[in-house]
Amino acid sequence: MARVTGTKRAIFDAALQLAGERGITGTTMDDVAERAGVAKGSLYYNFASKDKLFEGLLCEGMTALTEALRAARDGKSGWVAIEALVTTLLGRIKANTALAKVIAGDIFRTDRAWKETSFAFRQDALAEFAAAIDEAAPEAATTGATLLMASSVFGAALVAGLEWLLFDEERPQSEVVAAILLTFSGRLAPVTR
Amino acid sequence: MARVTGTKRAIFDAALQLAGERGITGTTMDDVAERAGVAKGSLYYNFASKDKLFEGLLCEGMTALTEALRAARDGKSGWVAIEALVTTLLGRIKANTALAKVIAGDIFRTDRAWKETSFAFRQDALAEFAAAIDEAAPEAATTGATLLMASSVFGAALVAGLEWLLFDEERPQSEVVAAILLTFSGRLAPVTR
Repeated sequence: MARVTGTKRAIFDAALQLAGERGITGTTMDDVAERAGVAKGSLYYNFASKDKLFEGLLCEGMTALTEALRAARDGKSGWVAIEALVTTLLGRIKANTALAKVIAGDIFRTDRAWKETSFAFRQDALAEFAAAIDEAAPEAATTGATLLMASSVFGAALVAGLEWLLFDEERPQSEVVAAILLTFSGRLAPVTR
Repeated sequence: MARVTGTKRAIFDAALQLAGERGITGTTMDDVAERAGVAKGSLYYNFASKDKLFEGLLCEGMTALTEALRAARDGKSGWVAIEALVTTLLGRIKANTALAKVIAGDIFRTDRAWKETSFAFRQDALAEFAAAIDEAAPEAATTGATLLMASSVFGAALVAGLEWLLFDEERPQSEVVAAILLTFSGRLAPVTR
């Protein structure tokens, strides 16, 4: 999906700002029109409903994230790929914290009009982590644990990343990446291998 | 905080059901009164506002979670304590999935009237993970990485746990705990220790 521009871009940016401040449910189409500086007619010409607007916004964000993750993994495998994926996810969360907050708040909502779309995109993003995990620990695939491990790595980076940006933003990004990777390094576990 | 009973319990249960279905912002005091089967006067007698109601509900849930985590860690240390904490968190998410969804959706909202309360409770819950991490990897404390690692473990269990309960609920709980712990076991990383 090409990045949208012009009026649609202004609408997306306004909707994202507002949802970052007060949630999707707390954001009205009137608020979006006002913040974007577009007439209500123009807003509804571009998006028939608030559901369509946020579905488009989340699609764009998740598509960009999945493409960035795919590019990060390209030419790497196993642990090196996991390092690249965590680093890239942190970078995306930093570059667009409002979007990350909205995605984190929406990821487990099962009442949204766009829940199937949201589910499909989450699986696409998790698939990048799952592929690297299968390479790093082939026995994970045989136990069916790969997707749960992918959710674990994704969840760790998402929650630690938001904790960093919302409450500890002075800390350098490299330290945050190092702390997340240290969690997976085995340093917490007794030596068993 | 003692677990509330009677009319307050009925109000909490109704509010949690509704917020699990449509989010906190999408839930009104009228909805809560109707679902709980209490008169609006009685609802407002118990909670002066929707903010007070949800602050009370989240406080009760986070207090119960922190007490359960503290009990799980009691008498254990290091990796064994981390295993117990992850197992307990998963058990709580399974026992009260609606509450876990509401907490997950709310944890990074910075616009809530109860955001300071929410922050304090999150720090209390994370402190249990941080204590176990400091025991397992003392060098984490010296680099200031402990709290980020605690967020990573908490985030991994929260996201993988919700993924399990919402989209893969037939899987036995023991397999989910095992997959999360495998993520931290070091099996993903090259041998460096």
